[in-house]
Amino acid sequence: MCVLRKQKMNINCYMADLGRRARAASRKIARVSGATKNVTLEQIALAIQREADSLQQANSRDVARARAHGRDAAFIDRLTLSDQVIITMVESVRQVAALPDPIGEITGMRTRPTGIQVGQMRVPLGVVGIIYESRPNVTIDAAALCLKSGNAAILRGGSEAIESNTAFAALISKVLYTSGLPRDVVQVICTPDRAVVSKLITMTEYVDVIVPRGGKRLIQKLMNEARVPIIKHLDGVCHIYVDESADINKALKICDNAKTNRYGTCNTMETLLVALGIAPTVLPLLGKLYQDKAIELRVDPAARTILTNAGVKPIIDATEADWRTEYLAPVLAIKIVDGIDSAIEHINTYGSAHTDAIVTEHYTRAMQFLSEVDSSSVIVNASTRIADGFEYGLGAEIGISNDKLHARGPVGLEGLTSLKYIVLGHGEVRQ
Amino acid sequence: MCVLRKQKMNINCYMADLGRRARAASRKIARVSGATKNVTLEQIALAIQREADSLQQANSRDVARARAHGRDAAFIDRLTLSDQVIITMVESVRQVAALPDPIGEITGMRTRPTGIQVGQMRVPLGVVGIIYESRPNVTIDAAALCLKSGNAAILRGGSEAIESNTAFAALISKVLYTSGLPRDVVQVICTPDRAVVSKLITMTEYVDVIVPRGGKRLIQKLMNEARVPIIKHLDGVCHIYVDESADINKALKICDNAKTNRYGTCNTMETLLVALGIAPTVLPLLGKLYQDKAIELRVDPAARTILTNAGVKPIIDATEADWRTEYLAPVLAIKIVDGIDSAIEHINTYGSAHTDAIVTEHYTRAMQFLSEVDSSSVIVNASTRIADGFEYGLGAEIGISNDKLHARGPVGLEGLTSLKYIVLGHGEVRQ
Repeated sequence: MCVLRKQKMNINCYMADLGRRARAASRKIARVSGATKNVTLEQIALAIQREADSLQQANSRDVARARAHGRDAAFIDRLTLSDQVIITMVESVRQVAALPDPIGEITGMRTRPTGIQVGQMRVPLGVVGIIYESRPNVTIDAAALCLKSGNAAILRGGSEAIESNTAFAALISKVLYTSGLPRDVVQVICTPDRAVVSKLITMTEYVDVIVPRGGKRLIQKLMNEARVPIIKHLDGVCHIYVDESADINKALKICDNAKTNRYGTCNTMETLLVALGIAPTVLPLLGKLYQDKAIELRVDPAARTILTNAGVKPIIDATEADWRTEYLAPVLAIKIVDGIDSAIEHINTYGSAHTDAIVTEHYTRAMQFLSEVDSSSVIVNASTRIADGFEYGLGAEIGISNDKLHARGPVGLEGLTSLKYIVLGHGEVRQ
Repeated sequence: MCVLRKQKMNINCYMADLGRRARAASRKIARVSGATKNVTLEQIALAIQREADSLQQANSRDVARARAHGRDAAFIDRLTLSDQVIITMVESVRQVAALPDPIGEITGMRTRPTGIQVGQMRVPLGVVGIIYESRPNVTIDAAALCLKSGNAAILRGGSEAIESNTAFAALISKVLYTSGLPRDVVQVICTPDRAVVSKLITMTEYVDVIVPRGGKRLIQKLMNEARVPIIKHLDGVCHIYVDESADINKALKICDNAKTNRYGTCNTMETLLVALGIAPTVLPLLGKLYQDKAIELRVDPAARTILTNAGVKPIIDATEADWRTEYLAPVLAIKIVDGIDSAIEHINTYGSAHTDAIVTEHYTRAMQFLSEVDSSSVIVNASTRIADGFEYGLGAEIGISNDKLHARGPVGLEGLTSLKYIVLGHGEVRQ
């Protein structure tokens, strides 16, 4: 008990010290020029290439330990720092370097009747805490995004990747030092103690925002405990509504891609809504397409009738729970709706406000869908899989936000910044 | 015990019902045209004028109760619905009506290499919970801002103003009904039970954001319990730094206004920093000015020497605590700093990131101050009192945010909205 309490105190001291260092470093990195940040990013890219062997050796010890603990193949795959992962990491750092510097941008300057000019300047958030699970490449991606956006980062990777993360931490620290930047701009927490997370997400005096990258369970746990604001991504129960006026070819292509391009991603379609008027035409074609790809179909009675008549099988009756489920698997829920109002109602009721699409050639219904669907991405005539930072031109993505406040949808560098008001005066006072 | 538990359950049911109604109403009000919202606002303004007598009668019962409870004059003043307050309320509703409709604005549409067009559409947040203390006019201001921004509002006024708030609630409800809008767009909680607040700030399924309007104690209490995000304003420890290159006349005018225009406001200067090089010239003049207005001066040793030599008295030695104190009173802390770097360091260390100003004619130092001071408003050559939604041209203000995420500084209609991504496609899918 006493030992535990002592250890707890040490964790608190350790984290407070880390927090203070991060805060101090954030003040310095906020003022560093874009050119210096870009040179430092290029040095990180070069160091990863140069030290690939030793990084992979550290990683192989993590992998061996995970194997010894009987982790499954998918887990080992995420954990492994393959040659390809190294190449992608280097490219991704260079892509971040190539993005425009978001810091210092001034927008909306207007002269007010009193004579003052008022506008907003883009500034870093300050200190960003990133909590992630077994992918060690997140260490470099997150460090690069925070550095570029002028923030200090505190990174907390999964304990499974601790050797890899420690190796990356040493690499980044060395580059920051030789670039003349404070080492504390990127700090990696290298203790497996889970108490550090509880401290990190409540240190409001030192941490400005938490970005979790991991499963729903991690994020819900953080939400329950955190005092620091979280840019959070929960589930993606994404829909496509095939409207009565859909172009059949577009509908087939989009519905195929949205479900089968990848099963495990948050922007994969999980529920297909089809307008009553077009269902007899389009649903048999879609049903066969999905049957050929071994997608399990969970359908409402109206869809069952059409699919059965078309010879599609096997099909399962959908339950209420299916409309709320993110399968992340070759499973699709299908429902016939009587028109766009029912579709929007269904999406706003059962969806997760992530990404939803309509397939239609009808102008007014396309506009209605755009206005009324309350999701972070609303799409006309394209696959839900398009909802992505790179596809949207953000250049890089630190996550996708289901929140409505601050950042919504794919979050790039801008999501790691804030706007402060600036006023240029000539002696103006308040009457 | 059993009765309490039963009452607790009733509160939970009552609040959940309120939340569900607000959510349903928010979906409807989000789609209402700007014209209809403006007509409704004008009807509210007219109804306030028409029913001024009965509103004031209800209010007089609140005032009588507050007097019976021995409340002080300032409290009674805030609570009283004078003729002037009624006129200001009517004007303020009309000002909100005159603002451009923020909803539906589309920005940043760009065509991506794949062919999709991506941009962002401004949409309401959904349901806004507003918790305020004894000013009954907030009921109307907040309702008007929420209505205009397409949000549903749940308003919780102080129990001291319950008769006034109930009367305003009835008025709004009647106008919404006759305008054909759902009555639940504005719901006023009319039970004095404090448990409703605890429920309101944790109903994440029904409430999207909480805007507290009240003292620091209220806000800190909410911060400790809330699960719903809060747009919060804490204290305003605002600074003016008089640089060595300041224009003396501007410095005198600005420093006078920032301290003495009003004492109780959050953008009032609380600490004056003066550059060593100009202190012997400017500080005696400022000292006399403040002495004439009976401002208590709490100063560091260097300022004490200059002020004493100039015959300014009485002066008090500042302690460490003074640098962190929001006096909200005729008290001013004064410190001599050796230059801009020390001034910025002091502000970023001791300030509250609210509003800080520099007085200088030196271009590079003005730019440095703008970049490096980490506050929601950073001002060159104007009074800190200028930091205000109306002065900035936001037209109306629901509060001032000390936060860095979402809204920062004065929060107008835009702070009650969110941006969702919209994609216009032509059948595009993900490779």
